[in-house]
Amino acid sequence: MAIIVQKYGGSSVADSDKIMAVARRVVSTVKEGNQVVVVVSAQGKTTDSLIQQARSIAKNPPKREMDMLLSTGEQVSIALLAMAIDSLGQAVISLTGPQGGIMTDTQHTKARIREVDGARISAELAQGKVVIVAGFQGVTNTNDITTLGRGGSDTTAVAVAAALKARVCEIYTDVDGVYSADPRLVPDARKLDEVDYGEMLELASLGAMILQPRAVEVAAVYEVPIHVRSSFSQESGTIIREVNVVEREISVTGVASDENCAKITLVGIPTDVSVLHRVFSSLAAEGVNVDMIVQAGTATPTADLTFTVTREELETALDIIAKIQGDQDWSVVCDEDVAKVSIVGAGMMTNPGVAARMFAALDEESIQVHVVSTSEIKVSCLVPRGRYQDAVRACHRKFELTNGN
Amino acid sequence: MAIIVQKYGGSSVADSDKIMAVARRVVSTVKEGNQVVVVVSAQGKTTDSLIQQARSIAKNPPKREMDMLLSTGEQVSIALLAMAIDSLGQAVISLTGPQGGIMTDTQHTKARIREVDGARISAELAQGKVVIVAGFQGVTNTNDITTLGRGGSDTTAVAVAAALKARVCEIYTDVDGVYSADPRLVPDARKLDEVDYGEMLELASLGAMILQPRAVEVAAVYEVPIHVRSSFSQESGTIIREVNVVEREISVTGVASDENCAKITLVGIPTDVSVLHRVFSSLAAEGVNVDMIVQAGTATPTADLTFTVTREELETALDIIAKIQGDQDWSVVCDEDVAKVSIVGAGMMTNPGVAARMFAALDEESIQVHVVSTSEIKVSCLVPRGRYQDAVRACHRKFELTNGN
Repeated sequence: MAIIVQKYGGSSVADSDKIMAVARRVVSTVKEGNQVVVVVSAQGKTTDSLIQQARSIAKNPPKREMDMLLSTGEQVSIALLAMAIDSLGQAVISLTGPQGGIMTDTQHTKARIREVDGARISAELAQGKVVIVAGFQGVTNTNDITTLGRGGSDTTAVAVAAALKARVCEIYTDVDGVYSADPRLVPDARKLDEVDYGEMLELASLGAMILQPRAVEVAAVYEVPIHVRSSFSQESGTIIREVNVVEREISVTGVASDENCAKITLVGIPTDVSVLHRVFSSLAAEGVNVDMIVQAGTATPTADLTFTVTREELETALDIIAKIQGDQDWSVVCDEDVAKVSIVGAGMMTNPGVAARMFAALDEESIQVHVVSTSEIKVSCLVPRGRYQDAVRACHRKFELTNGN
Repeated sequence: MAIIVQKYGGSSVADSDKIMAVARRVVSTVKEGNQVVVVVSAQGKTTDSLIQQARSIAKNPPKREMDMLLSTGEQVSIALLAMAIDSLGQAVISLTGPQGGIMTDTQHTKARIREVDGARISAELAQGKVVIVAGFQGVTNTNDITTLGRGGSDTTAVAVAAALKARVCEIYTDVDGVYSADPRLVPDARKLDEVDYGEMLELASLGAMILQPRAVEVAAVYEVPIHVRSSFSQESGTIIREVNVVEREISVTGVASDENCAKITLVGIPTDVSVLHRVFSSLAAEGVNVDMIVQAGTATPTADLTFTVTREELETALDIIAKIQGDQDWSVVCDEDVAKVSIVGAGMMTNPGVAARMFAALDEESIQVHVVSTSEIKVSCLVPRGRYQDAVRACHRKFELTNGN
């Protein structure tokens, strides 16, 4: 019997009617002859309201206690969904993250899954039960409750699917799949039937916020196929799996964008690696995620180092850098008025001229490019925030993504 | 350093201001040189609202899932209280029932504590932390979350105090102690400075709902002194401990009453013990609590057996009895229109004529007595529900409890 993992987000379990709808879908998947594990998030705005309650008591509450508080959100969801499934006559059991064997590191509020001990889940499945596992949460080896940070339920679902060698991990969402660009920006964007893990990773981390990037990473490592599909229809969505690139004609799959960027430039810093090391290890120690990193002129003793962070983390990043800077002879400039636009496609770099074609598209619209960075499967440009929507449309048109290219 | 366990009920942590007030009291107890363990219930009406949510999904939700759901209530409280205490600069950690080592049996929604493994609590105390433990919940040996039933937080507090050999278990409540009768019924009821465990057990189980009877039982077995006191004042309340009866002149300590009674009489059942056994073991198996049991005429082959249950459990009890009855030759009558009034006092029965004096009090008010049962330290009478307040007042007056007797 195949194991299917289904993940439902907070909006899918926002009220009793929606919970019953999820329960019916789960039961019908069982009736098709599958063993089903369901991963579920906190209901609707629960997490936000718990955060608000905490803030009314303490400005900067201990992170361990935030996790203690926030993890109640999913615990309510799993219990209610279990009741709903039980009411349809299907044997079912709910498990918290700790009970489900979701072992994490100790980084409270943004813990990472180290291991899934699937023993309990497997034992319950073997008894013919649907198993509901709380997403977003886990437990340290000292038995403290952790949360994985926003969107962590996707990662729970994929990690559980990997541990159980599930046939597929279905991620239910309010969109019907992954598109070649954000349909709000590009109305004729095309739904993609199939996306490679690497492409999805770039699309996700670049702002197509359908799937948590870490979930895609885990899926890629353990080769778990992900099926992103709509909670509101039976249509199939987008399958994310390893795609044989050689046989592909398409070089560019989609255009992604991310408004939540701020650019920091360290002007005239020594190019000696120890400074780079100090800057990025200090940022990492405080949990600041750094994105595009660009440095030019490493042959000279000093250079300009540019990188991006999220806008929320800009202040923190600048504080950290100020400490490192001390009275050293370099300066810091930052720009919050930027956004990132990227073209993504497996095998793209083997297709010469892709980057040039992107620059042409931007140039035709007179969109200035601040920073460029490239990888095997993407080209990203930092553009003025006011122009990023134009940039997305220009790229989508240039690469003829509407009809495939 | 002495360990003090403090228990705060749901109304003491109903909102952020109240939580801060509890935090300040905890911190001041630490500053007096104590190690403090705090046991806390779910906020205000949280449990009721979770129950309502469950009922909107399923009429008869699985009890294990009810426990999964309800246990989130205290988890929210412990996290918020930890944040409040932390904000006052005091090291603190919150522990769920499972983390706090509250091991229970598997009777979901009304589990009993089997053992408290205090290792984690002790280790955290040794690090100078205040330890907050979620009341009302525990964990089975298969790692499933249980709840102890309404009022179970008292039991958690006393069990933790016993395990840690705490100097005292303080129960904070919205009354300032235990009175010689319900002050709403008897305005001149007297606050008792000291009550014996046995007396408190009778007072509690008979309707003075200040302390969960199981909590008192555990306290008596482990000789944990309980201090029942008000959250709103610094005044001392009532100490419950082993009182040397020999030196006491007082025979009647208080008058208790319980409206939540229904009387069942099995008319003309065989007096052979096997029927009694079947009736009460079947009721116990379904978790129906039976109170006063009275049977007269055991020398004859048949007799009338009368006992009381709570009004909520009357239907269940009648269903169970109907199954046992089958087509046997006896009948069942029940009366919901009763209430129980009891006089309680350690050493009471060594003082002859106490029961007679109670009957005299009731007779003077022309209050009919349905059923009488007595123990070493109490005499209970089942009276018509409409008259129970008169009965309480009559007894309180008769035994001159206002000024001591």
